[in-house]
Amino acid sequence: MRAMNVRWQDFEITGELRARRMGQRARCLWLTGLPAAGKSTIANLLERQLATRGHHTYLLDGDNLRHGLNRDLGFARADRAENIRRVAEVARLMVDAGLIVIVAVISPFRSERDFARGLFDPGDFVEIFVDASLESCIRRDPKGLYARAMRGEIGDFTGIDSPYERPERPDLRLNTEELSSAECVERVMGKLDRVPS
Amino acid sequence: MRAMNVRWQDFEITGELRARRMGQRARCLWLTGLPAAGKSTIANLLERQLATRGHHTYLLDGDNLRHGLNRDLGFARADRAENIRRVAEVARLMVDAGLIVIVAVISPFRSERDFARGLFDPGDFVEIFVDASLESCIRRDPKGLYARAMRGEIGDFTGIDSPYERPERPDLRLNTEELSSAECVERVMGKLDRVPS
Repeated sequence: MRAMNVRWQDFEITGELRARRMGQRARCLWLTGLPAAGKSTIANLLERQLATRGHHTYLLDGDNLRHGLNRDLGFARADRAENIRRVAEVARLMVDAGLIVIVAVISPFRSERDFARGLFDPGDFVEIFVDASLESCIRRDPKGLYARAMRGEIGDFTGIDSPYERPERPDLRLNTEELSSAECVERVMGKLDRVPS
Repeated sequence: MRAMNVRWQDFEITGELRARRMGQRARCLWLTGLPAAGKSTIANLLERQLATRGHHTYLLDGDNLRHGLNRDLGFARADRAENIRRVAEVARLMVDAGLIVIVAVISPFRSERDFARGLFDPGDFVEIFVDASLESCIRRDPKGLYARAMRGEIGDFTGIDSPYERPERPDLRLNTEELSSAECVERVMGKLDRVPS
């Protein structure tokens, strides 16, 4: 096959071209926060809203990924770091594919969120702090996980026996004790509209 | 936030919907073969051809992924298996995102290619065997890797001191000793056209 030494790189489809062909600016919207702070609820509603506007999206949910790509990982510190590393790398690939990627993962450690940000061009990573007090999250506890963690049935549970490091300068903070899910999504959409696409 | 207990699942954007909104059938085109068989060359040309037809694609290249998602993995048997597992899981997520995903990885073991196929709905995984004799690949050796492996400078090198298990029933076999890259891509496009989208 004579073409083997031909360099096809010139013809390669780039990330920017992929996004342009989708008619959008590809970005990673990274939702961080305590368990039960409202990340998944907001992420789902946000994806729906973006779809309504004709955008091509994908939602990477921390819990769901633990059934597939990250099924080999637990919740100890090193596994948590690897979990976030892989989620960030996949988000980067998907942004390179032209998509608007919504990530919903607790991502409790500042160093790991900073690692994720570092994978993207400036402005392509939007850190959204889904904020609710620990007391409020314990009260909500929709899956009963805080209760189990407090009974000692689950270890390394963020907020109980594993720390959550609050973002110091998130791109957006959503207080889910004061705002409805719909209002949170509005704020995100407003934020995206303010950033040139 | 009262909406916390609302189940938004009904509103979720599904994989089928994502692909339909992209005007295509999402699929994984999995190119397997010896080093220097022609996988990357064909993958690049194939992506370009699909883009020309207005499709939204992504190319997962084994070598490139080892600089990001799979940077922690080596080439021993267990690491190779984990490498393929992750590539397959990411391809699955991207097909779920609506994309036509081209995967170019040696993927030398039948069990791992079967694992990959098992992640997809029937017909959504197309195994393409990029076939060239070992002698021919050693002769091409565009990166000089076979030469280094034969001098013992690289270990666990497929074809030299690590096996390649030929696909028994690939969906498509491309003999790159007989076909040009362009002809290979034509065959793939023909194959895709024959499968109802």
